[in-house]
Amino acid sequence: MHCSVHFLPADVRVEVPAGTLIHEAAIRAGLHDLELPCGGQGTCNECIVEVNERLVPACQTPVRADVVVRIPQTHVAGMRVVSDSNQLAGNLLKELGKLTPLYLSEKILVPPASIDEHYSDWNRLTRVLNEKYPDASISASLLVLHLLAEALREADGKATVGIREIAGGVHVLDIRAGHTEQSPLGLAIDIGTTTVVVQVVDLVSGHVLSTRTSYNMQLRRGADVISRIDYARTPERLAEMRELVLKTINTLLVEIGPKPDEIRAAFISGNTTMIHLLLGLQPKYIREAPYVPTVNPTPALTAAEVGLAIHPEAVVEFAPGVGSYVGGDITAGLLASEIPSNHDGVFLFMDIGTNGEIVIGNAEWMISCACSAGPAFEGAGIKCGMRATLGAIEQVSINGALSYKVIGDGKPAGICGSGLISLLGELFKAGAVDQSGHFSDGSHSFQVERGALTDSGEDLIITDSDIENLIRTKAAIYAACTLILDKVGLKWTEISRVYIAGGFGRYLQIPDAIMIGMLPDLPHERFTYIGNSALTGAYIALLSRQHRHKLTEIASKMTYVDLSSDPRYMDGYVKAMFLPHTDWEQFPSLHAVLENQRREQS
Amino acid sequence: MHCSVHFLPADVRVEVPAGTLIHEAAIRAGLHDLELPCGGQGTCNECIVEVNERLVPACQTPVRADVVVRIPQTHVAGMRVVSDSNQLAGNLLKELGKLTPLYLSEKILVPPASIDEHYSDWNRLTRVLNEKYPDASISASLLVLHLLAEALREADGKATVGIREIAGGVHVLDIRAGHTEQSPLGLAIDIGTTTVVVQVVDLVSGHVLSTRTSYNMQLRRGADVISRIDYARTPERLAEMRELVLKTINTLLVEIGPKPDEIRAAFISGNTTMIHLLLGLQPKYIREAPYVPTVNPTPALTAAEVGLAIHPEAVVEFAPGVGSYVGGDITAGLLASEIPSNHDGVFLFMDIGTNGEIVIGNAEWMISCACSAGPAFEGAGIKCGMRATLGAIEQVSINGALSYKVIGDGKPAGICGSGLISLLGELFKAGAVDQSGHFSDGSHSFQVERGALTDSGEDLIITDSDIENLIRTKAAIYAACTLILDKVGLKWTEISRVYIAGGFGRYLQIPDAIMIGMLPDLPHERFTYIGNSALTGAYIALLSRQHRHKLTEIASKMTYVDLSSDPRYMDGYVKAMFLPHTDWEQFPSLHAVLENQRREQS
Repeated sequence: MHCSVHFLPADVRVEVPAGTLIHEAAIRAGLHDLELPCGGQGTCNECIVEVNERLVPACQTPVRADVVVRIPQTHVAGMRVVSDSNQLAGNLLKELGKLTPLYLSEKILVPPASIDEHYSDWNRLTRVLNEKYPDASISASLLVLHLLAEALREADGKATVGIREIAGGVHVLDIRAGHTEQSPLGLAIDIGTTTVVVQVVDLVSGHVLSTRTSYNMQLRRGADVISRIDYARTPERLAEMRELVLKTINTLLVEIGPKPDEIRAAFISGNTTMIHLLLGLQPKYIREAPYVPTVNPTPALTAAEVGLAIHPEAVVEFAPGVGSYVGGDITAGLLASEIPSNHDGVFLFMDIGTNGEIVIGNAEWMISCACSAGPAFEGAGIKCGMRATLGAIEQVSINGALSYKVIGDGKPAGICGSGLISLLGELFKAGAVDQSGHFSDGSHSFQVERGALTDSGEDLIITDSDIENLIRTKAAIYAACTLILDKVGLKWTEISRVYIAGGFGRYLQIPDAIMIGMLPDLPHERFTYIGNSALTGAYIALLSRQHRHKLTEIASKMTYVDLSSDPRYMDGYVKAMFLPHTDWEQFPSLHAVLENQRREQS
Repeated sequence: MHCSVHFLPADVRVEVPAGTLIHEAAIRAGLHDLELPCGGQGTCNECIVEVNERLVPACQTPVRADVVVRIPQTHVAGMRVVSDSNQLAGNLLKELGKLTPLYLSEKILVPPASIDEHYSDWNRLTRVLNEKYPDASISASLLVLHLLAEALREADGKATVGIREIAGGVHVLDIRAGHTEQSPLGLAIDIGTTTVVVQVVDLVSGHVLSTRTSYNMQLRRGADVISRIDYARTPERLAEMRELVLKTINTLLVEIGPKPDEIRAAFISGNTTMIHLLLGLQPKYIREAPYVPTVNPTPALTAAEVGLAIHPEAVVEFAPGVGSYVGGDITAGLLASEIPSNHDGVFLFMDIGTNGEIVIGNAEWMISCACSAGPAFEGAGIKCGMRATLGAIEQVSINGALSYKVIGDGKPAGICGSGLISLLGELFKAGAVDQSGHFSDGSHSFQVERGALTDSGEDLIITDSDIENLIRTKAAIYAACTLILDKVGLKWTEISRVYIAGGFGRYLQIPDAIMIGMLPDLPHERFTYIGNSALTGAYIALLSRQHRHKLTEIASKMTYVDLSSDPRYMDGYVKAMFLPHTDWEQFPSLHAVLENQRREQS
């Protein structure tokens, strides 16, 4: 018996045999946003879905009849929310069309030799490949030659080759007899200063098999790029930094658990310093005039060279950056937002991680800049801050009483970026925090929930120094946006679309972000939260040749402006150190809302 | 003070400071035929030259005044003798023109970055390389990226890069600060069934720094290709065979002594089986219908993959072969003889090693075949046989009394190929051996010199079974030539040039070779002895891109004919088992000479 499963809100239907788990049905439907951190044991509740108004774990719940399954998503009024995993679902894959991943699995038929046509195995293989890739020079590793004779004889010439396209040619990395259905795997990796994300991708279907995140182990050697560069000045320390980030990635891989040998390609996005540290390249020149990194772009390397614990000959490519302070994470992010091609007006792109990077432009030109935002929105440097994982408060509302939403719907363990923005915005709106970021009642902290304790056994609170931290961060970003707008002679109102990237959490509350003055006071429908766009960009580039070219194009079109040398930046920063801003004229609609609200309250 | 040194017979002059060793002067003059097996210690006499009618070691003798130096060469009347090392001297290098070796050392100037033009080191390097190689995709190994920042800063942007041209691009293998004068080294390697030769080449000047030969250590596992294929049937034995040939090559490299890391490229010629065994590829399919090797051509690999004890990323390329039994040694040999381009009439090329390979053709077409010759001419299977090295009798004449010439002019240690041909020819001419190869006096051996002992303490003799061995070898070759001529409908007299390649010794005596019926009875000026042409071809290909392309062209133009399936081959073989042949009509001029001589003697 087959049952029809209708997934919402994606509006995708799939027929599966009765007994199929909802999670498997979702994968068949091309929906890959149900992570299984506990490996499908039913213990983590990360894959909770809504069936007949009941919440059930998708990894444990079989389909017994025709059913409607809603994958939880929050739609904030007037704003398109695109979470990390949603982006990777059906629509994106459909847009990519026929996949042309970094590592391609090709099913071929190599006719056997005969007495009259006794061409060597290699010769016959190259002839077949040259039909698919005319004029390409074909190369191979010795490993492939060792497999070649048997692979071509075992299944009457039917074989599956794994190749990598290179300039002017094709490099064969693997050959197996028969037309195997086993897909090679690839990695999309985002190396952030604070957070590292590894995503395992099926290179044939494009499906995301797993996404896993952890803090960058380099954190113990400095919270930001500058302190890491300073730390890595000696060869020994540089080697240590390299080992730390490799250990971060390789540990995530072990946790995810694919066989290392099955992973044949990786596409990495990261800021320029992170890429230098990953490769063991001395990053000090990034900080010394004329601020020139060693690599940017970074040439393709092998996994063995890089030190990734995957197939040693797997190709590793890197998103190209623009300057020392605008790296491949930003170009990848722009690729993910598909801004340069699909958008008419002027866009603003902001990626808020430990550094804030801002790009303004349109299909013709792009200007980028960077500011030191600090890792507050990634949960670091905040008393009860945490990454946007299970147990994190991701959304708060104060409507008389305070209520909140926890990732996984369990007990709160801390507050992630989106939760902090939401909390601060609500506290300010409710008048509990004043414009300068102090608690109106003169206290130094606010208890989010009475009696609730964090993992470390402390009260779940937000302190005035947390708020100061958050204000510094949002001020740095807002001031950077203001200055770059000023430089191109545009007003906020001329921006027709704002893309916000970053690891805040799944659902960034745009009204709250405007409320605290992190985002400008524009109509909500102009904002799109695109989550970890650096990872999404890496995923797209891993799968699509056309988009790898586009990435190079984005990097070449973009120019970089150094804000730190402009005295107006500090002015703008100081002005933005209030909630939402010292200059109410910049937040006209907000002003009206607040006035109304406070009038009602009083 | 400078002195003029005039080298003969090359007729090359060079000015050197007084005190310069003759050997160094020869290298400056572009003459590289003075080997220094003892490393310039003056103990081996391999570099003896003639100065003022005195023989002196070139490695020990300084130039004190203007001087004429004669490098010993034997010019046999009516025949151009081209020895291995002569070929590599001035003329060949001149013909190659500007060198384009597999590994290119480029002196570049990379302008420093500035605040306004703060492109990364890699970006600036690729811009400079793209000026030299427009539209080339530039790649690099991580090792290069590690050196990059310092290399570009140490000498104000002056740097020397080591690159390898690949299809569609350029791969950077090394970078050093400054414009270094130290040349990278390359290897030309000929892997014969019996003999392996390794030549170390300066990749900037093209000069041969050393050539060293040894028996292939695989010999202990079978004398010919067929027995080695049979031996290597199990994975363990295949691995053993691979290790044996790698040990042969790597031991030669240790003896020669360059730093492994300085060697950045290798070009290898060898028959198809030898290449398979070198790469650990199961060669059994070469012997099984439809006789299809795994690789041919063989794609470029790295030294680390192959197992050569040189720079691990050094590129290793292979001469392409034609069929299972006509390998890259033959195409390389044809490249060395420059037949396909410079010659109008029909040529015959024969490479006589453990296998005899024969090619007939012209600029338009080429037909090749192979016969099992046996290693007699390389000294194997002959009682006092030896390779053409120090102490080998390389030439014999019987003019009443017997006299001979020893390589190095010392005590004879054995007889090499050219000596055996010469000895048998002279014995036959003198009537001491009859047409069927038996000693006329009924004895079973002939003492070359009374009282002379070989290294192993035995008498220096040639036995009747040695002669039988030599006759079998020459008959196989001659029969193959006759049949292939027959197949293309040509007569011997229509051949305008005969190229003879093989490791006989420095000076093959053409009249003696005709006398024993190894070579056809044609005017002597039609013959050219080109020595180890497989090695010379590898040397040329190592140094010249154009000739690497030509090598591919040669392989693609050539067709292969299987002699063993033609019953006429055995007929021809049996007829050729006499001295010179059962059919005197094939040796008309010889018949007359012999009749005359014998009439005089009687």
